[in-house]
Amino acid sequence: MAEMAVAVVILAAGQGSRMQSDLPKVLHRLAGVPLVGHALRTAGQLQPELTIVVAGHGAEAVGRAVTRLEPEARIVLQSEQLGTGHAVRQTLTELEGFEGKVIVLYGDTPFIGTDTLAALADHPADLVVLGFEAADPGRYGRLVVTERGLERIVEYKDADEATRRIGLCNSGVMALDAGLLRQLVVRLGSDNASGEYYLTDLVALARAEGRRAEVVICDERETLGINTRTELAAAEAAFQTRARRDAMENGVTLCDPATVWFALDTWIGRDAVIGQNVVFGPGVTVESGAEILPFCHLEGCHVSSGATVGPFARLRPGAELGGDVHVGNFVEIKNSVLNQGVKVGHLTYLGDASIGEHSNIGAGTVTCNYDGVGKHRTDIGARAFIGSDTMLVAPVRVGNDALTGSGSVITRDVPDGALAVGRARQENRPGLAVRMMAALRAEKDRK
Amino acid sequence: MAEMAVAVVILAAGQGSRMQSDLPKVLHRLAGVPLVGHALRTAGQLQPELTIVVAGHGAEAVGRAVTRLEPEARIVLQSEQLGTGHAVRQTLTELEGFEGKVIVLYGDTPFIGTDTLAALADHPADLVVLGFEAADPGRYGRLVVTERGLERIVEYKDADEATRRIGLCNSGVMALDAGLLRQLVVRLGSDNASGEYYLTDLVALARAEGRRAEVVICDERETLGINTRTELAAAEAAFQTRARRDAMENGVTLCDPATVWFALDTWIGRDAVIGQNVVFGPGVTVESGAEILPFCHLEGCHVSSGATVGPFARLRPGAELGGDVHVGNFVEIKNSVLNQGVKVGHLTYLGDASIGEHSNIGAGTVTCNYDGVGKHRTDIGARAFIGSDTMLVAPVRVGNDALTGSGSVITRDVPDGALAVGRARQENRPGLAVRMMAALRAEKDRK
Amino acid sequence: MAEMAVAVVILAAGQGSRMQSDLPKVLHRLAGVPLVGHALRTAGQLQPELTIVVAGHGAEAVGRAVTRLEPEARIVLQSEQLGTGHAVRQTLTELEGFEGKVIVLYGDTPFIGTDTLAALADHPADLVVLGFEAADPGRYGRLVVTERGLERIVEYKDADEATRRIGLCNSGVMALDAGLLRQLVVRLGSDNASGEYYLTDLVALARAEGRRAEVVICDERETLGINTRTELAAAEAAFQTRARRDAMENGVTLCDPATVWFALDTWIGRDAVIGQNVVFGPGVTVESGAEILPFCHLEGCHVSSGATVGPFARLRPGAELGGDVHVGNFVEIKNSVLNQGVKVGHLTYLGDASIGEHSNIGAGTVTCNYDGVGKHRTDIGARAFIGSDTMLVAPVRVGNDALTGSGSVITRDVPDGALAVGRARQENRPGLAVRMMAALRAEKDRK
Repeated sequence: MAEMAVAVVILAAGQGSRMQSDLPKVLHRLAGVPLVGHALRTAGQLQPELTIVVAGHGAEAVGRAVTRLEPEARIVLQSEQLGTGHAVRQTLTELEGFEGKVIVLYGDTPFIGTDTLAALADHPADLVVLGFEAADPGRYGRLVVTERGLERIVEYKDADEATRRIGLCNSGVMALDAGLLRQLVVRLGSDNASGEYYLTDLVALARAEGRRAEVVICDERETLGINTRTELAAAEAAFQTRARRDAMENGVTLCDPATVWFALDTWIGRDAVIGQNVVFGPGVTVESGAEILPFCHLEGCHVSSGATVGPFARLRPGAELGGDVHVGNFVEIKNSVLNQGVKVGHLTYLGDASIGEHSNIGAGTVTCNYDGVGKHRTDIGARAFIGSDTMLVAPVRVGNDALTGSGSVITRDVPDGALAVGRARQENRPGLAVRMMAALRAEKDRK
Repeated sequence: MAEMAVAVVILAAGQGSRMQSDLPKVLHRLAGVPLVGHALRTAGQLQPELTIVVAGHGAEAVGRAVTRLEPEARIVLQSEQLGTGHAVRQTLTELEGFEGKVIVLYGDTPFIGTDTLAALADHPADLVVLGFEAADPGRYGRLVVTERGLERIVEYKDADEATRRIGLCNSGVMALDAGLLRQLVVRLGSDNASGEYYLTDLVALARAEGRRAEVVICDERETLGINTRTELAAAEAAFQTRARRDAMENGVTLCDPATVWFALDTWIGRDAVIGQNVVFGPGVTVESGAEILPFCHLEGCHVSSGATVGPFARLRPGAELGGDVHVGNFVEIKNSVLNQGVKVGHLTYLGDASIGEHSNIGAGTVTCNYDGVGKHRTDIGARAFIGSDTMLVAPVRVGNDALTGSGSVITRDVPDGALAVGRARQENRPGLAVRMMAALRAEKDRK
Repeated sequence: MAEMAVAVVILAAGQGSRMQSDLPKVLHRLAGVPLVGHALRTAGQLQPELTIVVAGHGAEAVGRAVTRLEPEARIVLQSEQLGTGHAVRQTLTELEGFEGKVIVLYGDTPFIGTDTLAALADHPADLVVLGFEAADPGRYGRLVVTERGLERIVEYKDADEATRRIGLCNSGVMALDAGLLRQLVVRLGSDNASGEYYLTDLVALARAEGRRAEVVICDERETLGINTRTELAAAEAAFQTRARRDAMENGVTLCDPATVWFALDTWIGRDAVIGQNVVFGPGVTVESGAEILPFCHLEGCHVSSGATVGPFARLRPGAELGGDVHVGNFVEIKNSVLNQGVKVGHLTYLGDASIGEHSNIGAGTVTCNYDGVGKHRTDIGARAFIGSDTMLVAPVRVGNDALTGSGSVITRDVPDGALAVGRARQENRPGLAVRMMAALRAEKDRK
């Protein structure tokens, strides 16, 4: 948390035409989350008083996504894209009355670290620009720093030879006093080649006012921006590489790190084992000592200590697996609580269900939770034994220590300790199989 | 299409002993297609008058594969492998009467580009050899070019120091006038170390006749030939790297490019999203905006805009998914049309079926399309609701707005709007579960 | 097999604190097998008279794992970890009376080759140390060799400049005469910085006795030890790279080598085809010409020639697939024999079963092998046709040429040639579907 009040402004209005996409750029996903969600998450760790997102292209979709990720965030519309300065100017109404530090971030720059943001927020200068030492400065804007602090930002195309030799580059991220922002942002001009209002011009304006500008330096990798799908794929790879290394350093076993995909918020305990080809969507926690076998897909779920999952299992949002639960192959669990020791070995769909301790769910079991109009719940007690191919037509309850015969369709509640069975009696018709197959073959031959 | 009549000869007689395989080399698969299919496909884009494949080792299998890929292609047998010149000589009967350009390709050289072939076809010289500037010329044959064109091809072992310094190398691919070919190929000799008839000797023969020989230069990567399984794996990797990059540049989202495998003819629309671990076999088209979730296997199928597939779904040949169709986990679709808005969420097999708009197929549904002798069709109308674990014993029809009770075996047609149900009534037997389990445990203890 | 009697001592007492794990280091898995299993396996190829494992941290778990892997191995407890010399001293009781060569290996050093071990075992010197030329000698101990053989081992921290320039490093692996070991190991002291007893000091003691010490040199990669999870992941990658290359060189087709994971003992025949994303656990053999499609998980099973498996199939221990067997998608086979030509296409669980030649198992079939207390067997004859969604309640037998109706629950044996069916008759209730859905919608609207 920052030492003084902070407002974060996230610029997210660009179309991202180089993405070759109808989706607004900041809604493309990285680590399971829209790009803008990364900036929102990092910003959130400062506990800002205000979070303002400037939307433009696809503003409605961006607004919806932002609200889902951070309900407190305010959305401001930039109808025309006239530059970063113009974008920030749209936030003045929302910033009215705010006293403290305003930090300007970008929706397509997902890797700025929390420590870096805190350093910006806590810096005593009136205006602070986030810079980085570029391995290849190329066409980045250069930061000219003297003993008096940051003198000015020079765009590459305006830079002379000496300036181009400067390695310290501009990330675009900036933090400044809210009063100063209000005072200066309305004085930004668009008298330049592209006719846009540049936020970087605030530095010169602040210096002209005799204010102090400084630079905070971060690792170049934090400033990585996304402009193409290839860059997005590279950013995803960079995220995954770090997440895999961190997991291993924290004591997680990854059988092949290159084939485990983490989301931004995946949490895995020490001595958990993660097999090859496991995809974590957002919202997954796996406790210490759990084992996820190969070929699993998890999202919005919790796996407790001692549980084993997979191979070929899918845990969907709301799946809660208690200790020592076993979920086997070709099993899907959605919005269901499986208590301590439950076993669901094969070919099963459990949705909107609750299963009591140490119950066993046979192969081919289905909770028929949807009747074509609404969803209904299935409740199974403790130590129940659900026979293979049991259809549980919800809403329905199976009691403790109850048993269902395999192949039964359960439409009414089963009392504790009862056996429920609903199936026709097997009849054997001697010789009929042979005669039927002969008839089918004869018919086929006639055709 | 080439400007003049073209015949393509594809040499595919070699055993490929370094492949360590009983399968003829040209039948090993690259990008989901036998190697020889790549040459056939590239050649096909010239719309040749004649396509002739010279088969030898495994000629019968090669012939079958070629005919399946290109029914118009003619297969010629080279019983003994006496060199490339000997192989081409076997095609003279098929070429009889053909006037135009003959292009000689190789069944194990899959990456020659269409533009390169067109440049060979359209070149005015009597004989044109495809060359490349080798990064490491190594033991390739060298092309000696003067102001009079291609003078000769010198094998590495016959080359002096000066010739070895030439970087321009021979790919083996050649285009020449059909009449010239007929005239010269019979004059090729085998008076050399290996006792084989070399196609390259045609250059010297043509020059001796005062004919003009020239070189067309292509990228070295186009000339990559396959001799070992390791080279095949490397070629596959090269193909996939290009296909993934192309897809991203065309606006496809690949969550992890390294885990999406394309076939030679995969077509994916802009803004489609492809998750981790998706395998495309031949013949797949995915429309713009469709989403393929992780762990899917698709082959010979079409996925329309707005559809979502997976995770853990398999679409087999003949699966046609309409707009906004949802195919979920552990679902297999084969030779079936799913119209607009159909949902098949879990654990289902649909084969030889047609499903009307907005129908919902419950978990565990199976089209029993095979009776042990033949296959039969299942037709489901629009807005039908197939209860979980419904067996549809084909041939059978379920009407519009019809409903099947879960656990039913449907053997007769269901009229529009009807409810079909076939199941025994559930009976609850109080206390019996507890007594049965106690008995089982007692019996086990006795043993 | 070594020329003289050999005893192998494997040091496996360390905690491996850098693994960040509660699991003893030597029990972390590499290539599907605990680390200590690699040393046991290599040692086993010498057919040693004695195999002794020194356990310490987690000794009970290590002991159980070792006994499972190598029932003949003897476990010795090192209660305190006072160095490698101290560890070896704990084996003296077990070594009592043994005459021959003692080889000391490490449980966390999995890649020592069989040829290297044989060279140590067969070397005529009294004491032989395994050394390697390090690409970067770094902080390894150095081997000082003169014309009289190995003079001494110098720890890095004790080495002067000249000694540090030596590239020949100490792997820690040592072979020596059993009598010499008994004589010297009790004379090792702990008068050094860390207060531990070092095995390396045996060299100086042996030389002081006028015994001959020599060096056997191996590839540095053989000496790779595992200290962190990142190193474990790197070792796994190294193992897989070699195993994939070897498979391809032996004539196996790997569609994407980077996505096939082998276990230590995987055996695959020539011209088998392995698709993308196949995980082999321990104990798998795949015959020549079999095909494993993408997304499969195999463990402890055998796949015969001509069989096809997957995609999305799981073969568990005891699955035996005969020639031309077909196991399709979302199918699990456990402890079951499928004879020649059996087909199991979709969504099936077969456990504890035997299936006769050319039988066909319909989609959704389940062997209900577990009754809540014990497991039972299912036997199916030859040429049987099991209808879709058949529940086979074990113990049960289905005869040759028998047929089960789809949706049947089979609880009693089915004679040869008989048709067994157990299902309620389908009833169609006209118009009821429409009325029911209308009622459900009305009820929902009311809420």
